[in-house]
Amino acid sequence: MSSRLSLDYLDTHFDQFITDLNECLSIPSISTLPAHNKDIIHCAEFVQQHMRDIGLLNIQSFNDYGNPIIYGDYIVDDSLPTILFYGHYDVQPVDPLNLWEIPPFEPAIRDGYIFARGASDNKGMFFAHLKAIESYLKSSGSLPVNVKFIIEGEEEIGSDCMFPFLDDHKELLANDAIAVSDNPMFSENQPSVCINLRGLIYLEVTIKSMNYDVHSGQLGGSVPNIIHYVSTLIADMKDPYTNKVTIPGFYDDVIEFASFDASLPVAKDQLDYLNAHYNLGDHANSSFFDNIWFQPTLDCNGIISGFTDEGAKTVVPNSLTLKLSCRLVPNQDPRKMIDLVSNFIRSKLPESFDVSINDFNTLASPLLTDINSSFIQAAKTALKETHNKDVIVQGEGGSIPILKGFQDVFKTPIVLIGLNAPNDNIHAPNERFSIQHYRYGIETYIRFLDLI
Amino acid sequence: MSSRLSLDYLDTHFDQFITDLNECLSIPSISTLPAHNKDIIHCAEFVQQHMRDIGLLNIQSFNDYGNPIIYGDYIVDDSLPTILFYGHYDVQPVDPLNLWEIPPFEPAIRDGYIFARGASDNKGMFFAHLKAIESYLKSSGSLPVNVKFIIEGEEEIGSDCMFPFLDDHKELLANDAIAVSDNPMFSENQPSVCINLRGLIYLEVTIKSMNYDVHSGQLGGSVPNIIHYVSTLIADMKDPYTNKVTIPGFYDDVIEFASFDASLPVAKDQLDYLNAHYNLGDHANSSFFDNIWFQPTLDCNGIISGFTDEGAKTVVPNSLTLKLSCRLVPNQDPRKMIDLVSNFIRSKLPESFDVSINDFNTLASPLLTDINSSFIQAAKTALKETHNKDVIVQGEGGSIPILKGFQDVFKTPIVLIGLNAPNDNIHAPNERFSIQHYRYGIETYIRFLDLI
Repeated sequence: MSSRLSLDYLDTHFDQFITDLNECLSIPSISTLPAHNKDIIHCAEFVQQHMRDIGLLNIQSFNDYGNPIIYGDYIVDDSLPTILFYGHYDVQPVDPLNLWEIPPFEPAIRDGYIFARGASDNKGMFFAHLKAIESYLKSSGSLPVNVKFIIEGEEEIGSDCMFPFLDDHKELLANDAIAVSDNPMFSENQPSVCINLRGLIYLEVTIKSMNYDVHSGQLGGSVPNIIHYVSTLIADMKDPYTNKVTIPGFYDDVIEFASFDASLPVAKDQLDYLNAHYNLGDHANSSFFDNIWFQPTLDCNGIISGFTDEGAKTVVPNSLTLKLSCRLVPNQDPRKMIDLVSNFIRSKLPESFDVSINDFNTLASPLLTDINSSFIQAAKTALKETHNKDVIVQGEGGSIPILKGFQDVFKTPIVLIGLNAPNDNIHAPNERFSIQHYRYGIETYIRFLDLI
Repeated sequence: MSSRLSLDYLDTHFDQFITDLNECLSIPSISTLPAHNKDIIHCAEFVQQHMRDIGLLNIQSFNDYGNPIIYGDYIVDDSLPTILFYGHYDVQPVDPLNLWEIPPFEPAIRDGYIFARGASDNKGMFFAHLKAIESYLKSSGSLPVNVKFIIEGEEEIGSDCMFPFLDDHKELLANDAIAVSDNPMFSENQPSVCINLRGLIYLEVTIKSMNYDVHSGQLGGSVPNIIHYVSTLIADMKDPYTNKVTIPGFYDDVIEFASFDASLPVAKDQLDYLNAHYNLGDHANSSFFDNIWFQPTLDCNGIISGFTDEGAKTVVPNSLTLKLSCRLVPNQDPRKMIDLVSNFIRSKLPESFDVSINDFNTLASPLLTDINSSFIQAAKTALKETHNKDVIVQGEGGSIPILKGFQDVFKTPIVLIGLNAPNDNIHAPNERFSIQHYRYGIETYIRFLDLI
């Protein structure tokens, strides 16, 4: 048990660990904007160099799949378990820039937080991985397990590069467990491990009812109004008050997989800022998290039709675009759900309408981990020892598409440890990461390495 | 009966009448674009000069109400009836310019049509008035009745200038009947007089459900989705298949005022280009025009919410803007209908939502004329003699706000004679006016003057 030495190293080097993270945070590696291609390359090189600096070996950059995928490992002994760490160095765009209190790529420390784009998602997280390894390697000269790292550069744009890369490098990435920190902990004071991720399908529906817009006086009353047809369709898809989807068959494949702790409090403080009524309808308060983590959803994400500029124009519009997505839960098949929703949409519109549906090939399978795995139990213990608090098991409403790919290939446990708090503004202005959480993250992973 | 002389004059001067109209059409008097203010003034001066040229008297330009309002008259004898002619010299914008086959302000004659912005709406129409007067005055030296002209420059932007002007000049405009040609005939081969105009209310509804947009994974399933709430609201307002409004009380004040000729054919050729199914639902085909002319409507004119750019973004949106309007029929009060619809909207949304409704002060009262008036009967006879065809009585689905103002002040019959065809592309690219219809229009008004 060398974790004492490693924790001492963490203590004495934590200021430097912050400096190193800030260096990475100052690179604007926004994957969705082509203008930042050079920054992506720069950040990929930085990650490689940093892997070298902390003592990882066999560092490679795979450049044929899209943005560089960075690999590094430290293999102690084939008889030891191998942990594959997954993270991503690309970040979200920074719009709207005027809402940032600091320049997003000039990391600043305020009130115990590091503020910067990527501070939590995901640079702060994979740095916690790297710094745990560094603490161990530099203090003990070795590791208690084998480790491999994959840090990719397209997570924020769908990880398309990762699926063929995974297919081509099954042996390189072979592992006994996969460790990921790309989801938040339950609340800023409540550590948790995560049991599942929801899947995702996304549809863009373009509908045309007539060849032209029509003057609402000249013909209004005797021509079809596409907004009214589509509104009736949407009304038939979901009860807005309960969020229950009313498309026949939508819940057919849902299995009950978590005996949910109904006593979990709604994270009210965290949500009050939304000033939303929480839509619980007939449900008890306790179903708040059940609905987010373990139930599938259907949400319209955007709609546009007709005259939307300032002022008044009396037109009966002839076309409409609707974006909608579903979060899926384990045992729901994304392709089957795309068909179910698409067919429902077509069946509810007149045959004379021109309906086209684009699924963007954006689909993520839901993921369910094995909570009884010794690796996940080790993560719980590591979190408990670090935070000195009982750890809860939670679900996650979001999606990380590549993880189901990992699970399908390796059939190994996926350990999901949230390190940042849910109110750290990921994907939003003023993204941040608590310095305390950064430190807890490194400590958790040091302990985790020792416990497995 | 001096119409023979006048008709001869029309015959011998018709080429010049086309030239004169084209001169007016070459002035880009677009009222909605400030850049065209000079053209508005230019056109107003042109109209005054042309009134002088044809022999009208007491020409005045009223410039204190907005765009100049041009007045001219020819009072023969106080004992004779006085006809007030109303028209407008302003025109609609020309966007999209690339769809025009000729420059919109360089009038061109092709296939028997004059093509130009304003050719039908309304320069061609009020020129038919003026040229009938010219034909009479220049051939006979006098008129069989007194005439007054009001030609305004803000019809396409709501005629706001006209209501105070009317209040201030009731004596100047005193009349026994008002003649207007600002609506189309039934079809290009079917002359008609029009019995009514629908009224209008227009609402912009802005709704906010939460303080911020929300990530559909993080919270989707437990937060309100505004698109679903508003869709359910819209679905509760109207059956899209029948166009029947389902807001309680919506039809309460509707009176049956026209014994409608159910044998009128749907103007199929004219409408097929829309490629729309005509929404007739359970109605017989004959109700097509009944729905447009004599029934009130509710139509959403535009909707926008959430992510509407290219691609996929998984957001639960927090705000939505909806534009909707109602066409009203005689006996419906616009202000009362604004309240009815607004209250229904508010009643159907959660109290926690922030709902604001802007009515733009855009409201037009519906208009019903007295079909039995001798002036309207004279118009029917004049049309029949001109076209050598039976004349039908029709309604009109659109609105001309100022006419109800005229009716309320003077309580005199309003004679609505459509001169152009419904497919002459008013408000659209390639607006046109059949040369034959121009000539028929002048002849109709010459005969009309003689018949009253």
